Amino acid sequence: MAAVTLPGGEFSNLALLKIDQALDQVHFDLRCHRPAAAGKKAVNRCLSDCAAMACVPMAILISVALPQTADTAMMQELFDGCQAAAAAFNCPIVGGDTAIWDQRLAVTVAALGVTAHVPIRRSGAKVGDALCVTGKLGGSILGRHLDFIPRIDLAQRLAAAMNIHAMMDLSDGLAMDLPRMMTASGTGACVNTAWLPIHPDALQLHQRDGKPALHHALCDGEDYELLFAVDSDDARQLANVDPEIPVTIIGRVTAAPDECVLTDDHGQAQAWPKGGWEYTGGGT
Amino acid sequence: MAAVTLPGGEFSNLALLKIDQALDQVHFDLRCHRPAAAGKKAVNRCLSDCAAMACVPMAILISVALPQTADTAMMQELFDGCQAAAAAFNCPIVGGDTAIWDQRLAVTVAALGVTAHVPIRRSGAKVGDALCVTGKLGGSILGRHLDFIPRIDLAQRLAAAMNIHAMMDLSDGLAMDLPRMMTASGTGACVNTAWLPIHPDALQLHQRDGKPALHHALCDGEDYELLFAVDSDDARQLANVDPEIPVTIIGRVTAAPDECVLTDDHGQAQAWPKGGWEYTGGGT
Repeated sequence: MAAVTLPGGEFSNLALLKIDQALDQVHFDLRCHRPAAAGKKAVNRCLSDCAAMACVPMAILISVALPQTADTAMMQELFDGCQAAAAAFNCPIVGGDTAIWDQRLAVTVAALGVTAHVPIRRSGAKVGDALCVTGKLGGSILGRHLDFIPRIDLAQRLAAAMNIHAMMDLSDGLAMDLPRMMTASGTGACVNTAWLPIHPDALQLHQRDGKPALHHALCDGEDYELLFAVDSDDARQLANVDPEIPVTIIGRVTAAPDECVLTDDHGQAQAWPKGGWEYTGGGT
Repeated sequence: MAAVTLPGGEFSNLALLKIDQALDQVHFDLRCHRPAAAGKKAVNRCLSDCAAMACVPMAILISVALPQTADTAMMQELFDGCQAAAAAFNCPIVGGDTAIWDQRLAVTVAALGVTAHVPIRRSGAKVGDALCVTGKLGGSILGRHLDFIPRIDLAQRLAAAMNIHAMMDLSDGLAMDLPRMMTASGTGACVNTAWLPIHPDALQLHQRDGKPALHHALCDGEDYELLFAVDSDDARQLANVDPEIPVTIIGRVTAAPDECVLTDDHGQAQAWPKGGWEYTGGGT
């Protein structure tokens, strides 16, 4: 058991905890991805949850169920991938567990975080809030799902600059994740499709499969960007928070419980898309 | 991400962390064990590590990779088993992660603990210390490996009653675990085979396979009892610590680094047994 010294401060008696797993042929695929990429994704998925609470990750633990085919080089590469991802946020790997079985690789990561402010949850959105996302959405399957940077630094800058009412990371796609935030908050949402920041990867996927890039931005999942709700006055400061990562207002919080609607610049309403990304053991 | 409020006190800025996994057909076997037993063992393995540090478990997180055959009843039973094990120590399950894949069940448990004393490690044994174990050893495969009680309460009573120099839980068998403690402490050990508390299950296994019960007590593993080193004066108080669970002096810490030896009441030395339990994906 590892001992981690927590910093002092107003919220020093709060430990924030998260566990997340990454499974071979679900979240990554060792038939085409390097072990280092698998390790990196496993750690970054968990750190993305730390970002969603705008907390500072203090330590992570990693449990690995290795296939019997794993050799020393594979294990080292897997560890190096985990290590590099954690080191990018000065977060030590303080413990772990390793076992070997005749099944595929499973990597489970638990994180301990601390916060300098009231913990930000997904349940605090208020009617009239601006809904915002970091970065651009859609098409992560083209590679970004393995190679994203958890928005830990940006989340802390956002939390320092404004009073964030609710926040979560987008792992299953805006179409699934936004209703979760609204349900937790007892509110609804109206999202303007014209405002959605669509990733070039979503456009590229559209050219391949003919589905609208907007559909990819809403439903693909694994963006690992942040979705948050802030007072609309606070939202005016968004442009100043980060010079490189765009933060975009995509809509507003409404009083209609659980009701999420899409609209466009002409006020034309569209049905909320079904689906989003679900991990069901299919390919990555 | 879950927020856990830590208690105050001298060591309130220390978070103790552990992660442990339990895999189907490695640590349990769903072909003959109930899902509830699997969940219970997964949680108790992690709580046994909390006992090894004599800490109070404050919260656990559980990640589950479910086989595609899992139905609602199986998942509920698995959760109930986890829940019952955690509730026995008033330890809430504060978070988790669930995924489905076409492989066997993997349950990973992370625990956050706190301590009211200097954290007890396996590296603090001192030359001349008495070496002690709780309970009786060997033959856990007959059922105890699934149905043990982590020595959390006993560990706290021991730590309150005496200055424990080093402690660990016996998961891989005394033959493997004691040398680990001695290596970590830079010491050696002399264990008297006549003093070893041999479990009736070890005797029963001896009748089946002809191997000495002593061999089972040393090598079987999965006892989940505590091994600890205390000043030999402190060891005199052991009899008063718990009315039900025996605590036995099995030997003493020596100055010979890394050297573990077996002896008997006649001073006859025996070679330290090779082996102990290793999780390598074979049967349980």
